[in-house]
Formats: sequence, C-alpha cells, structure tokens
Amino acid sequence: MLEKFLETIDKNQLIEKGQGVVLGISGGPDSTAMLHLFWRIRKAFELRLYAVHLNHQFRGEEAEKDADYVKNLCRRLEIPCYFFSENIEAYSQKKGISFEEGGRERRYQLFDQVLLDNQAHCIAVAQNLDDQAETVLMRLMRGSGLEGLGAMDYKRGEHIIRPLLNISRQEIENYCQRHQLNPRIDQTNFQSIYTRNRIRLELIPFIEKYFNPRIKETLSRTASLMREDADFMSSISKKIFEAIAINVEDEVHISVSALQENHTAVQKRVLRESILQLDGKLKNITTIHIDQLMDLVERGQVGSCLDLPNGINVLRDYSKLCFRNKKNNKRLNFFEYPLKIGENTEIRELDIIFSAEVLPKDSRKDLSGATAVQYFDLDKIQEGMIIRNRRQGDKFSPLGIKGTKKLKEFMIDEKISREKRDEIPLVCDQAGIMWVAGYRMSEKYKLDKNTKQILKISYCYKNL
Amino acid sequence: MLEKFLETIDKNQLIEKGQGVVLGISGGPDSTAMLHLFWRIRKAFELRLYAVHLNHQFRGEEAEKDADYVKNLCRRLEIPCYFFSENIEAYSQKKGISFEEGGRERRYQLFDQVLLDNQAHCIAVAQNLDDQAETVLMRLMRGSGLEGLGAMDYKRGEHIIRPLLNISRQEIENYCQRHQLNPRIDQTNFQSIYTRNRIRLELIPFIEKYFNPRIKETLSRTASLMREDADFMSSISKKIFEAIAINVEDEVHISVSALQENHTAVQKRVLRESILQLDGKLKNITTIHIDQLMDLVERGQVGSCLDLPNGINVLRDYSKLCFRNKKNNKRLNFFEYPLKIGENTEIRELDIIFSAEVLPKDSRKDLSGATAVQYFDLDKIQEGMIIRNRRQGDKFSPLGIKGTKKLKEFMIDEKISREKRDEIPLVCDQAGIMWVAGYRMSEKYKLDKNTKQILKISYCYKNL
Repeated sequence: MLEKFLETIDKNQLIEKGQGVVLGISGGPDSTAMLHLFWRIRKAFELRLYAVHLNHQFRGEEAEKDADYVKNLCRRLEIPCYFFSENIEAYSQKKGISFEEGGRERRYQLFDQVLLDNQAHCIAVAQNLDDQAETVLMRLMRGSGLEGLGAMDYKRGEHIIRPLLNISRQEIENYCQRHQLNPRIDQTNFQSIYTRNRIRLELIPFIEKYFNPRIKETLSRTASLMREDADFMSSISKKIFEAIAINVEDEVHISVSALQENHTAVQKRVLRESILQLDGKLKNITTIHIDQLMDLVERGQVGSCLDLPNGINVLRDYSKLCFRNKKNNKRLNFFEYPLKIGENTEIRELDIIFSAEVLPKDSRKDLSGATAVQYFDLDKIQEGMIIRNRRQGDKFSPLGIKGTKKLKEFMIDEKISREKRDEIPLVCDQAGIMWVAGYRMSEKYKLDKNTKQILKISYCYKNL
Repeated sequence: MLEKFLETIDKNQLIEKGQGVVLGISGGPDSTAMLHLFWRIRKAFELRLYAVHLNHQFRGEEAEKDADYVKNLCRRLEIPCYFFSENIEAYSQKKGISFEEGGRERRYQLFDQVLLDNQAHCIAVAQNLDDQAETVLMRLMRGSGLEGLGAMDYKRGEHIIRPLLNISRQEIENYCQRHQLNPRIDQTNFQSIYTRNRIRLELIPFIEKYFNPRIKETLSRTASLMREDADFMSSISKKIFEAIAINVEDEVHISVSALQENHTAVQKRVLRESILQLDGKLKNITTIHIDQLMDLVERGQVGSCLDLPNGINVLRDYSKLCFRNKKNNKRLNFFEYPLKIGENTEIRELDIIFSAEVLPKDSRKDLSGATAVQYFDLDKIQEGMIIRNRRQGDKFSPLGIKGTKKLKEFMIDEKISREKRDEIPLVCDQAGIMWVAGYRMSEKYKLDKNTKQILKISYCYKNL
C-alpha cells in the first residue's frame, strides 16, 4: 500500500520535499492509516506533520476514547497533535445548517488555522476509494452533471489533498491490521449516513455480484475522466465569462448576443459563473434554474425577470442579462481605523475589537492555535498599520502561493459571498494587505528563520 | 402522451412537414405505440409513412404471429409495410458477430434501403425512457466516459430519430391499452438480455424504492447534459485534429508539440479521432489504450511503438506520432470499368457483377426493396457511365443532405474502415459519383415528379 500511496503523491504532485502537512485524524481506520503512512515517509520527504482531532461532542464517552486513541498514537509516533472539542450540534443549529455541514465547516476551519499557525502547506484528509465510488453513485442517483460526477479530486483548491482516494477500505483495514494500529470504529463520516450506508452495504455489493466485481475502481476511473473534462469546460467557460461579462456596481451583466455565439454547453457554464461571481456560491442552483435562465436568454421578453435561490434576481434587458443580488441593498460603507501596537482598536461597523502586541522570538513554539489570531514578522511591516474594508483594485499575496492575486479573486476562491465581502476587516500597512482577517495572512509578512520579533494581532467580537 | 410526443418532435426538430418517415416495427408495445402516434399526426404533418418489419427467424411460430400482427395493424391504418425474413443467426455466425449485432446491422440496412427506395427522410426507432435509463446504468457499470454516459440521442446521424426516448414503458403500455392496440410481447431487444433484465427488474426498482422514485427521468436528464458536453468537446477536438494532423498516404501523423499545447481532455480526444480517421471505427479502443497513447506522447522514446486493437500500430517519431494500419499492406489497385445499359459488367477485383436497365415511369410503385439495387432519373445522367473505386479528391452529394461532401468524409461518417474504402464500387457518370454502391446514391440523380425514365442499377456477388 505504501507504493500505491507514493505513486498517488507523485502522479498528482500532492506534496513536495520539506513541506508541512496537516492531517485530519478521527482515529478511524482511514485517517489512522494515513497518519501512519505519512509517518513512514516523513524522513524521506523531510516533512513536518501536524495532526488535528476534533471532538464533535456528540457521542459522549466514545468520543473521549477516540481522542485518547489519537493522543496515544501521536505520542508514540512523535507527531504533534492539536485537540479541539466543540459542541457541533449547537454550532450547526445556531447557523441553521445540518450537523454534517457544521462538522465539516468547523473541521476545515480548524485545519486551516493549524495550517496557518504552522506555516504548513497542505491539509490531508482520508477519503478512500469506497467513499469515492459511493459519492459518484449518490450524485448519479440524485441527478448531476459533469462537475458532480467528477466527485472528489486528489487535490482540492490550494491546500486540501486526498492521498488515499484510490485505496479501498478493505486495503486500509488490512494495512491497519498488518501494522497493529487497532483504529477506532470510524465515525467521521456523518454525511447522509442512511443513504451512504445503503449504497455501501446493499447497492455496491449487488453491483459487484451481478455486474462488475471491480465497480469501485470503474467508478473512480469514470470520475477522473469527468473531472478532466469538467476542468477543460470550466477553463473555457471562465475565459468566455471574463470576455463578455461587465461588472456594474453590485451587478453582473452578460451580453446576450455574445453569449449566444457559444455552444450551449458553454453558455450554461457562463450563466453559472455569473451567479458564482455575484454570490460567491452556487448552493441550491440546479440544472432546472440553469434551464430557466437559458429560456430567458432564448425567449425572454425584455423586462421579464427570474427569481433564483439565495435572493438572486435576473433581469432580461434589451441586449443583456442582469444578475442582481437582493441582499446587496444594505451595503456597508467604507471604514478605516489606525491599528497601534499595545492598544485596542474597535471596528464600530462590525462590533469587533482588534489588538496588537509584540512577542519575543523565543515565544514561537507556544503560538496559539485559536481562530482570530495571526502572527507576523515585525521587521517586514512598514509604518502606519490600519484596519479597513476592501477597496476597488485591492491586491493580496495569500500565504502559501507565489505571486499576487486580486483580492476579489481570493474572496471568490474562498467562497465569500458578495454581500459579505465588504464586512471583512483587512489589516494593512502602507505597502499593502497583511491579513484578510479570519481567512489568510499575506506571504510577505510570514515568520521565517530570520524573524527577530513577532507581532501578534488578534480580534474578538465585542458582544462575546 | 401525444402532447409529449409532439413536444419532443418540436424541441429536437425530428421531422418537418411533408417528409417521409420509415418506422421500425417489431409489433411490441413501443413500436406499436410509435406507429399509432405517427399515424395520428400524419395528416397535420403531411407525412408519408413506411413501416418495416424484420422476422429474425429465431422464434418460429411466435415470430410469424408478430409479423401477422404488424400486417393487420398496418392494413387497418393503411400504412404500407415492408416485410423481410432472414436467418439472422446464420448471418451473424457467418460474420463472426453476436446475434444482437447481426440483427441490428441487418435491421438498419433494411431501414436504409426502404428510406432510399422511397426517398424518405428519416428512420424512427422506438427506444423509450426505460431503455435510456438502463443504457446509462449499464454503461456506468461497465466503465464509460462522457460520450458513453450520453447514451442515446433523439437524433443520431442524419436519419435516425427516437421520438419516444422520454416516454416511460409504463406510459407506453397505458397508451396501448387506451387505444386497444393489443401489441405483442416485445422481443426486439435482444441486447444483453441477461444484464438488461437484471437492471430493469432488480436494480432500477431498488433505486426507485430507496433513493429516487424518479431515477429514470434523472438518468435521462444526466444523459442529455453529457451529450451536450460531449458534443462541445468533440467539435473542439475535431477542429484541433484538423489543424494538427497530416495524412501521409495510409498513415495519420500528429505533431506531438502541437498536441501538447492543448488540455489533456482535448489531447485524448484528438488521439481517438486519429484512430477513427485511420480505421473508421473505435471498436475495442478503451480508456486504457488512450492512456497508453498519452504515455507514448509524454514519455515515449523515439522509435518506440504501441500495438492497439484492430491491427493499429502507433510509432513515436522525433516530433510526431504516426498511426498506421497493418491491414493496409495489401491495398487494392485502382480499377475502372465501363457500365453499359442492358449489359453485365464484372468487377474482377471484387467478384461483383453490375447490371443496368431502363424502366418505364409507371413501374415506380413496384420498385424493389432489395439491397444492392438503386434507381436513378435517367435524364439526369450524362454519357459514359463507369464503375471505379475511389480516387483522391472524390466528392459526393449524399441523398438527403444539401451540398457536397468529400467522399472520404462520407465514408468516415458511414464508419467504413480505411482498408475497406478502396473496395467500394462507385457508379459514376462524367459529372461525378451517382452511387456509392451499397451505401447511398447521390442527391443529384434522384427521382422526382418530372422523372420520365428510371434507370435501375443493381449488383450481385458472383459466387452466390
């Protein structure tokens, strides 16, 4: 299995020598095997490993035992481990999302934070071949296009990697046994437990028995082909969107005639891209909505409107489609406050208080993992720090990537909806953005081996 | 159901007013309902309808009863019906193909013939929504990419239409009952009867019960999206193939550096297109072969070779990939024979005998439906008819389409493999190709209302 793991890493360029890797560890067979595999290659790849475990406070004593198991394993393998414990049920209820969504959201937030705190390069999660096959079938049965059937990728976005994605659950269990890892029964997968279980325990075995004994590999291969095609379609469609879309204040306008010069498959993706650019997400947007939009393009009368989920409204104008966000009416004004070391700065518009303090160099290994805290190399900061919200043309060098990006693009990549983009505090010096608070610091201010003084900036909500 | 049928026809532009439609009729519920639906709209659309029934000589008396049923129904509805009876088992064994393939091949040959004899415009076949859903699942389980998951289209090629593709088997059965059609039990679908039956009787009901009660509609919608995307990918890839491929005698050469400028998804399709252009088909070419080819592109040493199915061999040259067909070695020489009315002409290279005779105008309604026969407007033919095989640069105006096409393109569209292309007799006058014998006559010589004399040309194999 080690060879397969190394081959996957090599073929998909998941990690490079000398990198820091954050490992999401539940204590189940998948993540335990992953931890062990990374531990075995840590020297050859000169890796820094950081395990992260979140107790979802849902299964009482069992969850405590999971945490203990992870603790012991990490101690034995000498891998630093971050433990968190949160009431995910309460969190999810408060946000009006499902338990599974809440758990995923918080896990990834914590992974991100550990990544940033340790200047690590990627977050490894342990989905396997069975998860992939189940995902393909689930999406197929619910109804899905090319993008959905692509299921999970070995690499998602800039940081997430899935090095076990072509290794079956059976192989993983055998591996754990061979290495006497004695993992806990895996409880990480809270997602649609009922549907998943039926796919896993009934549907897949039925297909294996009567149609294709290697159905999991077959579905995984199909998903790879779909991702490849989707990637191409997406790159073409984004280019065309860029060429024919006009941003008018809070709206996105698309020229109908320019749109219609393209293949239907591309037109539909440009329409999706318009919504994504406007709203930062495509949640609840289905093929039915896209078909309605196509109808508005092809047959819509001038002045007719279409209401889409998430408060999006599309107007058919003479020559263009206008995508508008009804939530955008109460837009935040510009704000800007000076940030002084040793003082508190209140952002009245957001009810947030920022503070900044200098830490000695030797405090480095005790740096906190809490959200809402970030560390900077003081010598890299220019005079006159301020906290403000975004301005047109803002640019940013996100930690972990080379080069500069438009702030807007960063926010889109981070799936920050349009109406929230003005509410995000930016910590800046005279040279530019140091920290998109709550999201990412700039590469330009990061700690390195020459760092002499550390500037700690943190914030908290006034009402808490 | 009539509304759904009309909507499908309208939305997919399946037929136009005044056209001739050939209907493949087995006597089962699907084709019977289709016949009845076309009969109901024949006046509004001014349609000429022609039913075709093939007795496969496989089920003895039952098959006779099927034919009788179709005969009676067509008589009652006053639709002309062509009956054929062939030993498909013997035919398939002789050709070394499966019974299902043999049946399909002969059915479509007969449909084509009736289409041409009656100057009809399309061939309607009765696959339904259930067939579509089963096809998607079958292909998914066997392993398939975008093109395969697109399953069947409402329209295939220039002639085939499937107007029932979004109507479920249940709706069709209800329709037959409501109109007291009493169809025969459907036996047309010989395809992988075992696999299909399990999908139909076990897999789909299981999915309907536990996951999605409307799975058939969902799969059909997914297939539509896939076809749309596949169509776009194909059009892009064909353009790129045209731009970077060089035909060198019997080989297809592809510039490696030009290929690699494209997205992987496109590169793979250009490689498939190269094989298609070389061999006229992609039979037995799987994703594994395409991956091997990609490997040859990316890492292949100069001089290394790859053997593919169907005798195709690919050489990695310094700057290009050379696709070669090992079957091409014994290439047929050029041949050319005069064709005289009232005489027999033997094509020695092919062991085929052609004959030509003039028929009076009033024989028109008795024109034969046999293969290897074709009728021409004598007054449109110029002096000096010949029979020859193809030459570089040949052009042709296939019956039923406007404009002229390269003969080579026509042969590719007809899936005629490269090595067979030289073996096809072309009946020509001094102005051009009148008939690609066995495939299609030219639009320019077709019978019309002003036709005074009909020239009948036919051929037969010498050994039969």
